[in-house]
Amino acid sequence: MAAAALAWNAAALIDKIRARRPRIHCITNGVAQGFTANALLAIGAVPSMTTSPEEIGAFVGGADALLVNLGTLDEGRRQVIRLAIGAAKAKALPWVLDPVFIERSPSRALFAREIAAAGPTVIRGNEAEIAALSQGRPVDAFALGLKTVVAATGATDHVMDGARVAGTPNGHPLMAKVTAMGCAGAAIIAAFLAVAEDPFEACACGLVAVGVAGEIAAEQAAGPGSFAVAYLDALHGLESGKLATRARVV
Amino acid sequence: MAAAALAWNAAALIDKIRARRPRIHCITNGVAQGFTANALLAIGAVPSMTTSPEEIGAFVGGADALLVNLGTLDEGRRQVIRLAIGAAKAKALPWVLDPVFIERSPSRALFAREIAAAGPTVIRGNEAEIAALSQGRPVDAFALGLKTVVAATGATDHVMDGARVAGTPNGHPLMAKVTAMGCAGAAIIAAFLAVAEDPFEACACGLVAVGVAGEIAAEQAAGPGSFAVAYLDALHGLESGKLATRARVV
Amino acid sequence: MAAAALAWNAAALIDKIRARRPRIHCITNGVAQGFTANALLAIGAVPSMTTSPEEIGAFVGGADALLVNLGTLDEGRRQVIRLAIGAAKAKALPWVLDPVFIERSPSRALFAREIAAAGPTVIRGNEAEIAALSQGRPVDAFALGLKTVVAATGATDHVMDGARVAGTPNGHPLMAKVTAMGCAGAAIIAAFLAVAEDPFEACACGLVAVGVAGEIAAEQAAGPGSFAVAYLDALHGLESGKLATRARVV
Repeated sequence: MAAAALAWNAAALIDKIRARRPRIHCITNGVAQGFTANALLAIGAVPSMTTSPEEIGAFVGGADALLVNLGTLDEGRRQVIRLAIGAAKAKALPWVLDPVFIERSPSRALFAREIAAAGPTVIRGNEAEIAALSQGRPVDAFALGLKTVVAATGATDHVMDGARVAGTPNGHPLMAKVTAMGCAGAAIIAAFLAVAEDPFEACACGLVAVGVAGEIAAEQAAGPGSFAVAYLDALHGLESGKLATRARVV
Repeated sequence: MAAAALAWNAAALIDKIRARRPRIHCITNGVAQGFTANALLAIGAVPSMTTSPEEIGAFVGGADALLVNLGTLDEGRRQVIRLAIGAAKAKALPWVLDPVFIERSPSRALFAREIAAAGPTVIRGNEAEIAALSQGRPVDAFALGLKTVVAATGATDHVMDGARVAGTPNGHPLMAKVTAMGCAGAAIIAAFLAVAEDPFEACACGLVAVGVAGEIAAEQAAGPGSFAVAYLDALHGLESGKLATRARVV
Repeated sequence: MAAAALAWNAAALIDKIRARRPRIHCITNGVAQGFTANALLAIGAVPSMTTSPEEIGAFVGGADALLVNLGTLDEGRRQVIRLAIGAAKAKALPWVLDPVFIERSPSRALFAREIAAAGPTVIRGNEAEIAALSQGRPVDAFALGLKTVVAATGATDHVMDGARVAGTPNGHPLMAKVTAMGCAGAAIIAAFLAVAEDPFEACACGLVAVGVAGEIAAEQAAGPGSFAVAYLDALHGLESGKLATRARVV
């Protein structure tokens, strides 16, 4: 996707998020819940976070997109994730898989492969997590095989669906010094998916918005504490013109 | 309640909270736990947060007030809530029900009605949550029927017990852009209940303190991230004179 | 330990943490998870937080130190803690016990005594928690009996192993107004243990680093909200020279 097109799309989609206020249901770990909810509110979406099996169907049924983060994975969480994905598919909702830390836990990696096979709209992880999930296969072939969009985040984020590739270098090293920054980024991708036609564009645009907010935040930060605060301010203040001007793609 | 009386009461009660440092036990969701604990510490109270069934009796037994927030509600959480309410009643502690998001989950709404019938000192929710709980009955009649104080929060917060009504317009729109702001507000109401004679006054005064802190925070905020930080600073620095001067009631 | 030696050690150890980036697995309560993870990232360590029984062995097996915090203690959490300690011992990892709030819960105090008997490298608690754990015995005798290092934190933190004693007065009263500050401090002690030879030195140095960061943060804070933010910035910016200059011991 050309830089100009990406910038234009990102700007248009962030305006749609502010106009539609999509509901994003997040199944995520306790470390990430608060920051993820605040990031979604800041960008203009409406988060919900329950992981109760009795409630998950009602919350996902009322949502516009779903985030499945594999942090703190036990049998109860696995069951809730399966229920949530079933509810998302029944409503044809877009959903994002974030295979957090699967390279550190064989049982989590095994479950991640089961969930990846269920057909997430987007899989977002850092390079180590995506490598563990694709088991060394080329990422574009892995994406094509699953008919999903895969985003491998790092100094430059790489987005691919097997047919298209985009690299988005926006961002800042302090983002790696704040817990749940990646988890919240996956939730923001879900918010972009909720208002977009094309998952590949939505994913790339969401990553650009996250990266630009990080760059703006770093200009005011004295360290990771003030960076996290400024990042939420930047997401909230990220107007489409500024996003279009700062968006980069390689 | 006249504005002057409310302002005077709010100022007197916040000084009592700082002098007595009441212990507030909170059963709340993982999204809200950290921010709620920090809000209670900032206002001068002492939070505890366990939701373990083995421990809940001891913690509530040693507390001065209880908060019951219905976020992330599963069977285990239901059981702990019932135990906590039993322990609060055995000690005649004031307790607050926060029926968060019950309009989004039928099973949660059903449980909320069970808990509302157990006689909370205060029920605090936003307008949608209170409407779902009162099932369309007039809120003042609903409050009178339950012999409880009901606070429906919004641009103006409305507090009623069936005999009295107060509207407290203090606050700022950024409060809706920070997760757990309402949950933390319900915990602050519990802190006011712990040092007050009259639950209606305590609830209205707690909401005024929350709203004034929000207004002070907004004067320094660049967005929801810096707002949440400034809000905790404002709660901590909220001295009774400033509170009395800024308190509004309609 | 002389002030000069402590300062020198603290400076050397913080440089080692930045160079080695030790992995610290934390079993801690939902209130503390986010702030603890951010404090570890800020100091230069790598946190993981799962409490899932299926995963705990893999995460502790891949870690350099373990934190066991007793917040929100139920049967499942007890089981995970026992598994984690077994995995830590199998790898001869240093581990820290934080007996949070045991003076408020008899069942938690009982479990804390079981875990203390399992031989933690360091036990860190406030004065009330350490008194509840030592059941009134002199703390140095208690430490000697368990062959562990005990840190009782307060206005001055006291560290003892039965042979040595250090008092570290660094810190600021606002630290008591931010939830999970002590829990995060225990995690930072674990990061120092991961790169040190001598647990007593590591514990004292970790407490000094925490205290100095608190003093630096307080210089910029307007209240507990901005203090917590500035504290993370200060941990991140805490270079060894500044630490050595500000370290105090009595």
